[in-house]
Amino acid sequence: MAAEPRLLANAIRALAMDAVQAANSGHPGMPMGMADVATILFTEYLKYDPADPDWHDRDRFVLSAGHGSMLLYALLYLTGYKQPTIEDIANFRQLSSPCAGHPENFLLPGVEATTGPLGQGLAMAVGMAIAERHLNAVFGDELVDHRTWVIAGDGDLMEGVNHEAAGLAGHLGLGRLKVFWDDNRITIDGATDLSTSEDIPARYAAYGWHVVRCDGHDAADIRRAIDEALADPRPSLIACRTIIGWGAPNKQGTSATHGAALGAEEVAAARKQLVWDSESFVVPEPILSAWRAAGTRSKGEHAAWRGRLAGSKQEEEFLRRMEGRLPADTGLEGWLDDLAANPQKIATRKASELALDAINPAVPETIGGSADLTGSNNTKSKGQQPFTRDDPSGRYIYYGIREFGMAAAMNGMALHGGVIPYGGTFLIFSDYCRPAIRLSALQQVRVVYVMTHDSIGLGEDGPTHQPVEQLTSLRLIPNLAVLRPADAVETAECWALSLARSTGPSLLALSRQNLPQVRTERSAENLSARGAYRLRSAFASRRVVMIATGSEVQLALAVADALEAQGVGADVVSMPCWSLFDGQEAAYREDVLPPHVFKVSIEAGVTLGWERYVGPRGLSIGLDRFGASAPAEDLFKRFGFTAEAIVPLIEAALAAQGDE
Amino acid sequence: MAAEPRLLANAIRALAMDAVQAANSGHPGMPMGMADVATILFTEYLKYDPADPDWHDRDRFVLSAGHGSMLLYALLYLTGYKQPTIEDIANFRQLSSPCAGHPENFLLPGVEATTGPLGQGLAMAVGMAIAERHLNAVFGDELVDHRTWVIAGDGDLMEGVNHEAAGLAGHLGLGRLKVFWDDNRITIDGATDLSTSEDIPARYAAYGWHVVRCDGHDAADIRRAIDEALADPRPSLIACRTIIGWGAPNKQGTSATHGAALGAEEVAAARKQLVWDSESFVVPEPILSAWRAAGTRSKGEHAAWRGRLAGSKQEEEFLRRMEGRLPADTGLEGWLDDLAANPQKIATRKASELALDAINPAVPETIGGSADLTGSNNTKSKGQQPFTRDDPSGRYIYYGIREFGMAAAMNGMALHGGVIPYGGTFLIFSDYCRPAIRLSALQQVRVVYVMTHDSIGLGEDGPTHQPVEQLTSLRLIPNLAVLRPADAVETAECWALSLARSTGPSLLALSRQNLPQVRTERSAENLSARGAYRLRSAFASRRVVMIATGSEVQLALAVADALEAQGVGADVVSMPCWSLFDGQEAAYREDVLPPHVFKVSIEAGVTLGWERYVGPRGLSIGLDRFGASAPAEDLFKRFGFTAEAIVPLIEAALAAQGDE
Repeated sequence: MAAEPRLLANAIRALAMDAVQAANSGHPGMPMGMADVATILFTEYLKYDPADPDWHDRDRFVLSAGHGSMLLYALLYLTGYKQPTIEDIANFRQLSSPCAGHPENFLLPGVEATTGPLGQGLAMAVGMAIAERHLNAVFGDELVDHRTWVIAGDGDLMEGVNHEAAGLAGHLGLGRLKVFWDDNRITIDGATDLSTSEDIPARYAAYGWHVVRCDGHDAADIRRAIDEALADPRPSLIACRTIIGWGAPNKQGTSATHGAALGAEEVAAARKQLVWDSESFVVPEPILSAWRAAGTRSKGEHAAWRGRLAGSKQEEEFLRRMEGRLPADTGLEGWLDDLAANPQKIATRKASELALDAINPAVPETIGGSADLTGSNNTKSKGQQPFTRDDPSGRYIYYGIREFGMAAAMNGMALHGGVIPYGGTFLIFSDYCRPAIRLSALQQVRVVYVMTHDSIGLGEDGPTHQPVEQLTSLRLIPNLAVLRPADAVETAECWALSLARSTGPSLLALSRQNLPQVRTERSAENLSARGAYRLRSAFASRRVVMIATGSEVQLALAVADALEAQGVGADVVSMPCWSLFDGQEAAYREDVLPPHVFKVSIEAGVTLGWERYVGPRGLSIGLDRFGASAPAEDLFKRFGFTAEAIVPLIEAALAAQGDE
Repeated sequence: MAAEPRLLANAIRALAMDAVQAANSGHPGMPMGMADVATILFTEYLKYDPADPDWHDRDRFVLSAGHGSMLLYALLYLTGYKQPTIEDIANFRQLSSPCAGHPENFLLPGVEATTGPLGQGLAMAVGMAIAERHLNAVFGDELVDHRTWVIAGDGDLMEGVNHEAAGLAGHLGLGRLKVFWDDNRITIDGATDLSTSEDIPARYAAYGWHVVRCDGHDAADIRRAIDEALADPRPSLIACRTIIGWGAPNKQGTSATHGAALGAEEVAAARKQLVWDSESFVVPEPILSAWRAAGTRSKGEHAAWRGRLAGSKQEEEFLRRMEGRLPADTGLEGWLDDLAANPQKIATRKASELALDAINPAVPETIGGSADLTGSNNTKSKGQQPFTRDDPSGRYIYYGIREFGMAAAMNGMALHGGVIPYGGTFLIFSDYCRPAIRLSALQQVRVVYVMTHDSIGLGEDGPTHQPVEQLTSLRLIPNLAVLRPADAVETAECWALSLARSTGPSLLALSRQNLPQVRTERSAENLSARGAYRLRSAFASRRVVMIATGSEVQLALAVADALEAQGVGADVVSMPCWSLFDGQEAAYREDVLPPHVFKVSIEAGVTLGWERYVGPRGLSIGLDRFGASAPAEDLFKRFGFTAEAIVPLIEAALAAQGDE
């Protein structure tokens, strides 16, 4: 080391103060408080190569306390990443800069995860550590052997998801996961003792973690704690006692440094205190050189790893998985052949299981799981073995009753790369993991959500378990493909779409109840890829277009039958995915949903949103209230989801239009 | 006691087996496993009067493990509640029965909370215990002096929300809260060691809870543990080691008893094992009598309490609050007078704070709080004192970084009665507490969510913090009033609506940025109560109706100005609440939004759903992607929320329509 760690750390502090001051917006306190710890980590322990941010065997570093983004931007700049430049940092939080308010994985290489929604960074890190251990088991130490490091704040450790994530990590024995807790005893509202009295180290010990404490401003003590953590086979919580805003003489140790610029006066006072004479956004040459030298620390390791990869018989397969390229055959074409030959009347959740029986042997990078609903979500395929602390080569995770933790872990697995995670729960509990689903979409990662029991069709469990607003509320999330297949064929097609969708998450909404196979002819094209398509054309002169999704497609067919019997021609359109349909060309959309034909939607959920497809004179059959507890058939009857109830509504509407 | 506890408990077991068997659906294992504990609680400890389920000073009992609903139905029947009848129990999980799959507070008196979504029952109980201590501080031991009891399962204790709730309860020292943990070591997927290894008692001790263990099948040991818990001033976790499905000789202790009927054969074997000879749904007279006698245990206490209430000077005020009647003057009319006299250009979050400055002194039952964003949510009014373990008379809760825990606690407070809870976070984090918001709506409780930073208008924090889909996703939840006021006057009106709305929750979506007061005349009517209303009529011949919400209303006015300058008449409609508008009569709706006039919506969020109001030829200005990090003005410009960007779109649309 050419410079004392404290001097190096002060470069972080200065950049953080300056950037927040320039933006007049941001969070200087956390970067200034954790600068010493981060400096030791990045200059002495972390395995990374700024020249190749995507080096597959790098350590992962997740800044779970994402509001302290300037800590990360400063580290990337100082260690020599191509981005951010010093100009990018000077433009912190401006439209032109990749240095966004919170770190965004899609804006800057080296940002491993988008963080800011508290607790999720830590939970994603658990997923990264899972992926690492799995790939290590598959490819061996010579190709995969790295750690996952996290900086988490008090907020991260108060959010419920940290409980789920830490419990899972302790159970799975993820010893490569090392978490620094920025124990600064300050939150936005003031001292932590305004709102919490817990003994966090004792809690983490209860999860089976190794816990160690250190003075977060004492380099030797930080090293001692890290060394102890590295020597322990358990995941570690390294509690770093710090002073928020360290270096700002009048504000440090208070919530005033947390989320606002220090002010010109206090910045000047801090420069004095830190003996930091250089101008704003200028790092003195000797200090920058020392940082840049530290950034080259792992070059030898990187080169050696490249040598091992080049010499490995597994190189091609390893790179295929890490680069996210699917195998040529995902198993689904054969399964679609089978379905054409032997149509199945099964629940789409069962159809998903059978699709997975085809996929999982053919696509070795999938890792499945369920939040304690394995038998209900049908997420475990034939012979799939569990991932355990003793055998991380397994490809099925018993996530426990931890929906949010599961979803966040899946994000981390996908961000790590080399695996395609899918996980199940009931569709209603998409609400429990919605913040992580949103981060799947924002981070543009391939995660597949298998959400079963997708309507009142689940029956007796009643309104707490019956999704009515979930389908459409999920459709509102940008870059999330919500897929609700109507039968076993569409389920296979939707799985094919989900696997192929490498730039964002997919969510399969699947039925509990059996559904007839409405697609009996083998189609060369994946019709679900269109989002909606004409499943059946009117026999009589067309007066109605019925649009339905999932389990209501069979009902639309029955309604159409009844209408045709009366000489009323009715198309039936199956619409597994709104967003894919919205992306089709206008001519296709107008062919499937002609503007001047009366349109009727049927979906056992809220009607809001369907106006987009049926128009103002259309009819939407749905459920604009909570459900009830009863057998599914009774509920469908009670809420009007029968041909007997729907046909008269359509007849009346047609008659009224005739009168106009 | 006329009968051994074991005999009494077997009545619960028999009813649970029989009801689940008859429905061929449900969860017998939990009621059978916890029958002994529940029997001791209901026959020896719980303070309640089946003749008056709403006795304000009763103990609250929450079955957090709601899937074990038959435990609760059996207890209510056996102790002599008017409902459920034995027929209701025989019709368990059928459309006609109040014995729903999961306990629903709106179906059965004696069901204190709707449970089933795991973790939330426990978290609601924390809110009940808060309400009890607060009202005790206000009204004294003579009127308010009761406990909150919970039965929680492994699932409850794995869900993240239990961490938030238990941390809050430990911090606030809620010693009247006593939680039984059904430690049966079984989840749906199998043994708990498939997915967890944590030491739950150690974790609860880390939160500052008292922890005690007992054998959940040994009456004396259960009593010992309860007595120890009652003697301890801290909240207690009573870990009850149980065998799931106790009494079913071949299936007990396995996940096979968790969520399915035992089958006729096993039911018969269990009857033999339990020496239970009576027919299905028949409880032998001596046992029923003993239960009914236990149900009268608290009659004396109840009578004494009634006497104290009748003699109290506080009777009227106590009953007003407990019955949820607002005071005649909520302070808002005076505040609206002030606003008419002195218009304010302030953020609606600030307007909400000023409204609370008027409300809180006038409405003493409000209890506010924030999930660590007090200064940002503006939820703390002048002089509002914190609720602390030492002074529970305070009316402001520092919830910490626990959005879900806060929302669930508010549900519990509202269910308890006597208080009106409101709490704040950023609108984006409605996702974190969405499962509890849904339960507010389903349970029909008066909870007010104060959600600020309601669009890209929050600026630099970027896409992780900018709601784009949240407003409409919340509008999809049945029985939730989503209110997005445009200025200080509408904010006051929306607060008035929220306070008056006693049958469900309200959610205020409020701006970070300042907004001009668009309503300057004092209106006798609460115009926001209409959901939407014409804020300004066209001057020139009307060709456009602009519809906007919240911070975009000022923009709609600016667009209208520009259009009028060109001779294009434009109405401006402010639409603070979709659902209230949907509830207006057709004539009103068509007057405000005339069918044949071109309509344009402006809202800085997703456009899906707006088709309902603008129709297929209308125009929706919105944001169908994630936001970005930059100052708010730059973002509004970047994403086209300026009059300069919008006016040409409207002109083009009008021209195109003219061509048709």
